[in-house]
Amino acid sequence: MAAPKRLSVDARRAQLLDLGMRLFSERAYDELSTDEIAKAASISKGLLFHYFSSKRGFYVATIEEMARRVAEVTAPEPGLDLMETVRRSLLGYVRFVRSDGAIYRSLVRGGVGVDGQVHQILETVRGLSVQRVLEQMDVADPSETLRLSLVGWVGFCETVCLQWYDRPSLTEEALVQLLLDTLSALITRALEEA
Amino acid sequence: MAAPKRLSVDARRAQLLDLGMRLFSERAYDELSTDEIAKAASISKGLLFHYFSSKRGFYVATIEEMARRVAEVTAPEPGLDLMETVRRSLLGYVRFVRSDGAIYRSLVRGGVGVDGQVHQILETVRGLSVQRVLEQMDVADPSETLRLSLVGWVGFCETVCLQWYDRPSLTEEALVQLLLDTLSALITRALEEA
Repeated sequence: MAAPKRLSVDARRAQLLDLGMRLFSERAYDELSTDEIAKAASISKGLLFHYFSSKRGFYVATIEEMARRVAEVTAPEPGLDLMETVRRSLLGYVRFVRSDGAIYRSLVRGGVGVDGQVHQILETVRGLSVQRVLEQMDVADPSETLRLSLVGWVGFCETVCLQWYDRPSLTEEALVQLLLDTLSALITRALEEA
Repeated sequence: MAAPKRLSVDARRAQLLDLGMRLFSERAYDELSTDEIAKAASISKGLLFHYFSSKRGFYVATIEEMARRVAEVTAPEPGLDLMETVRRSLLGYVRFVRSDGAIYRSLVRGGVGVDGQVHQILETVRGLSVQRVLEQMDVADPSETLRLSLVGWVGFCETVCLQWYDRPSLTEEALVQLLLDTLSALITRALEEA
């Protein structure tokens, strides 16, 4: 008899995280009270705290959920070459930015409540992107130039995509091509130097 | 008789901003009380508030001062070609990161207290970098691809330099060359497309 109840708990938690992504993209952490969160979720504060222990815990869980989704939509498909793999990951990323750009922007750009723990979650997502490219390249021990180039490329992608979210003047395909060509130029340069 | 007093006020203000850059690079905005700031400056809280009206005002003024310094050390020298101009600006930037990286990182990466107003100051510095490159290129009306590429390049430089600050494994010259080659590749691509 435990399974259905467990499922229902997970479903409720997922629903609350969805709500959290919406709420924290619209309002700053400091502006949003626990009462308002509970009211928006149509649950008691007690039940909210049962799931997330505190407002801060809810906020961090929301960011972890966002990070999980980014990792999921950009997961490499097996059996493709480097550039095609990255192209598909980037398309997933760009579509995520288009649909969930508000919360993504508020997190990447910082805001009240963005501190060490949240920063760490974002750095983990960024590191995962670098690691995935290196794995696709079959490079276990990158040169410092290559490593820095890939880390910088992730920063490039974030900056470009956030600008594009505010002003989507390129097509998704043209945007992805810009990110991809930049990666290609950086890799070529780093490998030539090595 | 007013001039010497005025100078002294300016000098005191500059001294306080120096202190602010140090304090806010070591401690988060929320962790630092006005009492501690006044004590570190060896002045009364009243005098601190005379200069900066509030802790928040002091924080914002510190960030404005940092932005002013970045703009100053990266100001283009006249009479050089595009790449040589940017190379010298980048060298100024890289040296600033090396010497004042702690405060720069805490700001660029966000933190409690980093909100709309602070974000706006950072965006202004970033926009200035884009504008300077466009002016050097003598391009008044950039294509969207060129504009996005330059905005992304600024994000690339920030990300790479912050990583480098944590782990300075490349020489200043090699770092600048990486940033410069990346700019060159982005410009070439954007102009080919146009």
